Amino acid sequence: MGNQKNINQYPRRKFLQNSALLGSAVMFSGPIELLANQHLNIMASNIKAKGYAGKHENGNLTLWNFERRPVGDNDVLIEIKYSGICHSDIHTIKGHWGKQPYPQVPGHEIAGIVTAVGKNVTKFKIGDKAGVGCMVNSCLECESCKKGAEHHCQTTGFTGTYGSPEKTSPSGISQGGYSNNIVVRDHFAIRIPDNMDLKHAAPLLCAGITTYSPMMQYKIKRGDNVGVVGIGGLGHMAVKLAKSKGAEVYAFTTSASKVNDIKSFGAKEVIVVDSADKLKPWKGKLDYMISTVPYAYEMSGYIDCVKPYGNFTQVGMPVNGALSINNFNMIFNRVNFNGSLIGGIPETQEIMDYCAKNNIHPQIQIIKAEEINDAWNKVVNKEARYRYVIDASTF
Amino acid sequence: MGNQKNINQYPRRKFLQNSALLGSAVMFSGPIELLANQHLNIMASNIKAKGYAGKHENGNLTLWNFERRPVGDNDVLIEIKYSGICHSDIHTIKGHWGKQPYPQVPGHEIAGIVTAVGKNVTKFKIGDKAGVGCMVNSCLECESCKKGAEHHCQTTGFTGTYGSPEKTSPSGISQGGYSNNIVVRDHFAIRIPDNMDLKHAAPLLCAGITTYSPMMQYKIKRGDNVGVVGIGGLGHMAVKLAKSKGAEVYAFTTSASKVNDIKSFGAKEVIVVDSADKLKPWKGKLDYMISTVPYAYEMSGYIDCVKPYGNFTQVGMPVNGALSINNFNMIFNRVNFNGSLIGGIPETQEIMDYCAKNNIHPQIQIIKAEEINDAWNKVVNKEARYRYVIDASTF
Ligand SMILES: [Zn+2]
Ligand SMILES: [Zn+2]
Ligand SMILES: [Zn+2]
Ligand SMILES: [Zn+2]
Repeated sequence: MGNQKNINQYPRRKFLQNSALLGSAVMFSGPIELLANQHLNIMASNIKAKGYAGKHENGNLTLWNFERRPVGDNDVLIEIKYSGICHSDIHTIKGHWGKQPYPQVPGHEIAGIVTAVGKNVTKFKIGDKAGVGCMVNSCLECESCKKGAEHHCQTTGFTGTYGSPEKTSPSGISQGGYSNNIVVRDHFAIRIPDNMDLKHAAPLLCAGITTYSPMMQYKIKRGDNVGVVGIGGLGHMAVKLAKSKGAEVYAFTTSASKVNDIKSFGAKEVIVVDSADKLKPWKGKLDYMISTVPYAYEMSGYIDCVKPYGNFTQVGMPVNGALSINNFNMIFNRVNFNGSLIGGIPETQEIMDYCAKNNIHPQIQIIKAEEINDAWNKVVNKEARYRYVIDASTF
Repeated sequence: MGNQKNINQYPRRKFLQNSALLGSAVMFSGPIELLANQHLNIMASNIKAKGYAGKHENGNLTLWNFERRPVGDNDVLIEIKYSGICHSDIHTIKGHWGKQPYPQVPGHEIAGIVTAVGKNVTKFKIGDKAGVGCMVNSCLECESCKKGAEHHCQTTGFTGTYGSPEKTSPSGISQGGYSNNIVVRDHFAIRIPDNMDLKHAAPLLCAGITTYSPMMQYKIKRGDNVGVVGIGGLGHMAVKLAKSKGAEVYAFTTSASKVNDIKSFGAKEVIVVDSADKLKPWKGKLDYMISTVPYAYEMSGYIDCVKPYGNFTQVGMPVNGALSINNFNMIFNRVNFNGSLIGGIPETQEIMDYCAKNNIHPQIQIIKAEEINDAWNKVVNKEARYRYVIDASTF
């Protein structure tokens, strides 16, 4: 699909004319003579892709040429422009959450341009901005799916954007966004408003929705005291989103060097937790707290910061998911501990539109493909400021 | 206080006459000539008591003669008739929850007869049935205390019935109910209705309130599917209480020998969990679940039984309070995990009155003082059926 880059520079109006002329099962974004060929290819044959894949638990990513499935009737083909780096990518590829199939291309913060649509697709047309988050499929028929909670699909479960068994994928598993393109069922692609920059859109699709969803679930509102623990990719979005909803945001970090940044994101106060004592003044003070810390840590002092009967949501996911909880704390603090998993497709669309409307965007650093391994190390070492986003033109 | 046994056999009407005659700061239940002496003693001097105390972490209890404080203006003296054995007693004395002062008399399920009241006491009169649960003091002035949540006292914290530092106690710590008497601030004594047998009242004061309080907090109601994990002293009360509220009760036990008993307590179904597979059919089926398991166990499969956004309350307290939670389960099950600590005094009174009115009582086995150590072993080995209650006349 290397020539798609040129095709996408072709004026959008012309695309639409061509598409209309074509009137075919798959509408492809290019001159008719090109389309005639590519149309057949895209429908009938696998689509060539390249990306960075993990091939071993050591987590070192290298260039990999692979194939996507042909574009089906309900699929869209997206030429990826930007792809965010999430701590989950690292945990997954390194096998921290379970043994993995390799090669595996990680990445579930994907933003790009639609370059082909299947015949049943009405949600997108060629040239549209589109994104893909953490899911690429589910049954769409169960109660959860019907109410827009595809991430809690009760029949098949959802197909994760990478590493999930997927019969239609030539490699047998879904392959993610550290790549130049993706074929995805239209339902699972998110519309990106015109005024939203693609590079800012990408991190909303995991870091954004993962923090937005529980904060909406637990109804944070104007004037609430909201705590955010761990101010990295997810946490800095949580600060911005909570602030935008009118909350007073208290940010808890172990990185003193982040204080000024975090204030600029809207935090009312930044607490540098260099000892457990720093948490004590906040005991019972917060209406709600969300933790994005992606490893096991001493949670009790943080949970104690929440008012009785308030909620503490752990979205960061440690090795094997294992966390320790102290029930002496829990019987005295009376806090509800809960986890939260991304959000459904309607809510992911909601945060995308909300951020576009309210001019909320992640603080990002654009990197080239060859910098991915270095960036992973920096994420692990808490040096990211605050989300690495890969320029997919460098694959 | 050995002669009080006789005094209490003195007809109640006569007591009241004597008390009225006395019209003094402390009214004592006996003939006037005796009262004259004892009144002074009770006001001015420590009160002799005997009980079974732990003297070492080995948890072996032996007879101990000790002293209670004199009866203060706001105190009542209770001659203990029955005292329940709670798993917490064992954990505490064995130091599982932290280093302990010794000698220490455990016991926080206390039922007896009021034999003296301080001059400010209006809640009780001599001859009344009275109980003491898990608390004997708190500030009574803070916001929590004022709203009847003395167990969450925000200033001093509450004084536990045994093992808490207590200046007024001759031994420097509070001493509990495995004993023949107790002096307690009137506010912390519970009225026991006439139609409630003292031996049945005792276990309501911990096993009862500890399971009742969270079930009321989380508003279990007619037709709800309520799960109870661990069917011992607390669990069997949870089954009875949930059933009495109209819930469909599902009881989870590892003891196949308890099945018929548990059905007789009102459980709709009893699940003998001899492998994790036994939990799978219940996934997402319960509106609420309470676990009384007093040790660390694999919680995830149980928590998964609760419907999304439902509550799972862990009231059983493992060694050092340490529990493991798997956040992969938590992000998919969306269950709120919480702890709960006994209940406040008004709610403890409520369950006492509720059980008296609805004829709900624990399934007990009466033992003598000399059988306490043996009973503790049986509790640890899950052989209790379902609450041991000590006949305090055997101290
Ligand atoms: Zn992610
Ligand atoms: Zn589904
Ligand atoms: Zn107890
Ligand atoms: Zn208080």
